[in-house]
Amino acid sequence: MRDVAVIGVGMQKWGELWEKSIRDIFVESALLAMDDAGVNRIDALYVGSMSPGIFSAQEHLESVLADYLGQKFIPGTRVESACASGGLAFRLAFMDVASGTHDIVLAGGVEKMTDVSGGEATHALATAADMKWEGMSGVTFPGLYAMMAVAHMHKYGTTREQLASVAVKNHANGLHNERAQFRMKITVEDVINSVKVADPLNILDCSPITDGAAAVILVPADMIKRFKRPGVKVTGAGHATDTIALHSREDMTTLKAVSEAARQAYAMSGKRPEDIDFAEVHDCFTIAEIIVSESLGFFAPGQGGPAAERGETALTGRIPINASGGLKSKGHPVGATGIAQVVELVEQLRGAAGPRQVKDARVGLAQNMGGSGGSSLVHILEVM
Amino acid sequence: MRDVAVIGVGMQKWGELWEKSIRDIFVESALLAMDDAGVNRIDALYVGSMSPGIFSAQEHLESVLADYLGQKFIPGTRVESACASGGLAFRLAFMDVASGTHDIVLAGGVEKMTDVSGGEATHALATAADMKWEGMSGVTFPGLYAMMAVAHMHKYGTTREQLASVAVKNHANGLHNERAQFRMKITVEDVINSVKVADPLNILDCSPITDGAAAVILVPADMIKRFKRPGVKVTGAGHATDTIALHSREDMTTLKAVSEAARQAYAMSGKRPEDIDFAEVHDCFTIAEIIVSESLGFFAPGQGGPAAERGETALTGRIPINASGGLKSKGHPVGATGIAQVVELVEQLRGAAGPRQVKDARVGLAQNMGGSGGSSLVHILEVM
Repeated sequence: MRDVAVIGVGMQKWGELWEKSIRDIFVESALLAMDDAGVNRIDALYVGSMSPGIFSAQEHLESVLADYLGQKFIPGTRVESACASGGLAFRLAFMDVASGTHDIVLAGGVEKMTDVSGGEATHALATAADMKWEGMSGVTFPGLYAMMAVAHMHKYGTTREQLASVAVKNHANGLHNERAQFRMKITVEDVINSVKVADPLNILDCSPITDGAAAVILVPADMIKRFKRPGVKVTGAGHATDTIALHSREDMTTLKAVSEAARQAYAMSGKRPEDIDFAEVHDCFTIAEIIVSESLGFFAPGQGGPAAERGETALTGRIPINASGGLKSKGHPVGATGIAQVVELVEQLRGAAGPRQVKDARVGLAQNMGGSGGSSLVHILEVM
Repeated sequence: MRDVAVIGVGMQKWGELWEKSIRDIFVESALLAMDDAGVNRIDALYVGSMSPGIFSAQEHLESVLADYLGQKFIPGTRVESACASGGLAFRLAFMDVASGTHDIVLAGGVEKMTDVSGGEATHALATAADMKWEGMSGVTFPGLYAMMAVAHMHKYGTTREQLASVAVKNHANGLHNERAQFRMKITVEDVINSVKVADPLNILDCSPITDGAAAVILVPADMIKRFKRPGVKVTGAGHATDTIALHSREDMTTLKAVSEAARQAYAMSGKRPEDIDFAEVHDCFTIAEIIVSESLGFFAPGQGGPAAERGETALTGRIPINASGGLKSKGHPVGATGIAQVVELVEQLRGAAGPRQVKDARVGLAQNMGGSGGSSLVHILEVM
């Protein structure tokens, strides 16, 4: 297997992009990544998108996108793993280059979520849960994560204020990201007083509905000299599933798909949790970031909330989490999120993250997750 | 890269499986394949499904299916390339094993199409075309393939009877396949007198709407001794896209994604078209089989129709095509079709195809296609 580097990244400003179609926003980000890498052709395309059939009445996306990107006849692959679709596209692109199948591979993610009604969007997102047993009972994602939050609070004493501190931190970071959907400073009181969605989660505990895309270019590490950009190496990759339904798990306060994917990525890269300088994690809800930070091994079970409240995951903390603003501030176009995490890792590892730069960033971790943790991808990237 | 073998195949009877859910039919086929291989665990899962979000209100399928198959925590990947989703799942499983990532990998495909109305099914399938330009004008798939048929008839003199002869042959083969949805003998007159769908295509020129799944188990070829089943080697793999829309192509009478995917598969396996003993090809409409048989190099452009009419593609012909009954008789649960083609190749290469056995079958080719040819996968399998 060959070593693999990321040599180009691209992402436009996310938000309600009503003037652009799903193909427009994908091509926009893909061209930014190709320009960044300095390439005008790619050998293969992997695109993550959760539900373009429901959101945009368009499946067969890899054919549409290869065509509109001007890359006819290349092999194109669309993957889906709910909100982890982007991370899965990155994994397959990494395996493609590592195995020697292709040399210049684009991994992208896209979702156009605001062309349907809120009810339709909620339905589309609910298809990431167990629709036969969870969906049939009427529960949607805020409800599922609310149950996880209640269980975590009950078992470990996690507080309402600790949950809020995650949102406050991520919005503080997102202020410095010009591509973020919601750039605003919020306080713990703002979160606690915002409208209730599913007790104990309020609207400011939840990531938003977003249109957006992101793309990265992967090449064999030994080709790096040919490209104008500094390379960032992919040193660890992990991928696991868990039960689709929350009620099938032994413990709702931990995420086994995350810990298993992390175990694989740490083993491949030879790193331990304490070797990670910073991380982008899947904060679809504030409780998710807390549980994920524990399942990744950054904190002991039950310590994620207190650590967030103490500022250990802030930009200047011991292990900065979601320097980009995370899903919370940056937005969450579900298929694009996993790729956007890699975009942030690369910009940080290049030392090009401007006012949100993590100090001495040499090893970064990206963790992407589908549904209530029914699937997860973990990747570790390092300065070459 | 390691050599890869298929050591287990599974597929239930296809049709209107109203008493079973999408997860039931997938697990049924997957367990048949695992039993056939003699394994009770898999290291990774790849599943092709076109539109489970629209057809079954369930995305995140790889998590659902790994869970219900009793294979918790394994990496699971759902891929989509419209009607070529199954072929794409097989390709990725092949790359996974070839690259040394995992040893025992299940590639499956599934679609549950009859739980929605005919109008909803037509909409779901239309999302495989260019919905912005083709879908907006009201054209659906019979219309797109009818345009290809008219162009082929105009350019090469292909006749109505030649189209019909493809359906007659495939139904004759399907009579011998106990898993086929429509087992009935038909005549050229039956096809020509059947109800018009989109001129010149009648209902008996079209593949049906079907519920079904199929699964195969792939392992490194050098592990074959451990398994109770004779191995069949994967010697060629090819994958390409073309423009999503018919109107963007220079020539509607050929399929460039097919010829490009075939070129790659022939090159990898060191075979030429004349070395192929039999093939399973994507006969979603009768005209599709004719054009594909030309784009694969079995016949010169314009000769596919006359060759079919002369019986060259019949079970006892020079190059038997769709001995299984094809999509036409066997049914076309879109995500499952590409895997079912591999199931047929393996059974033929094992000499276990019973009354539909192709004589001296040692090299088989499977060709799967998305939409109107916006994507295609070609695989070559051989007796070990």
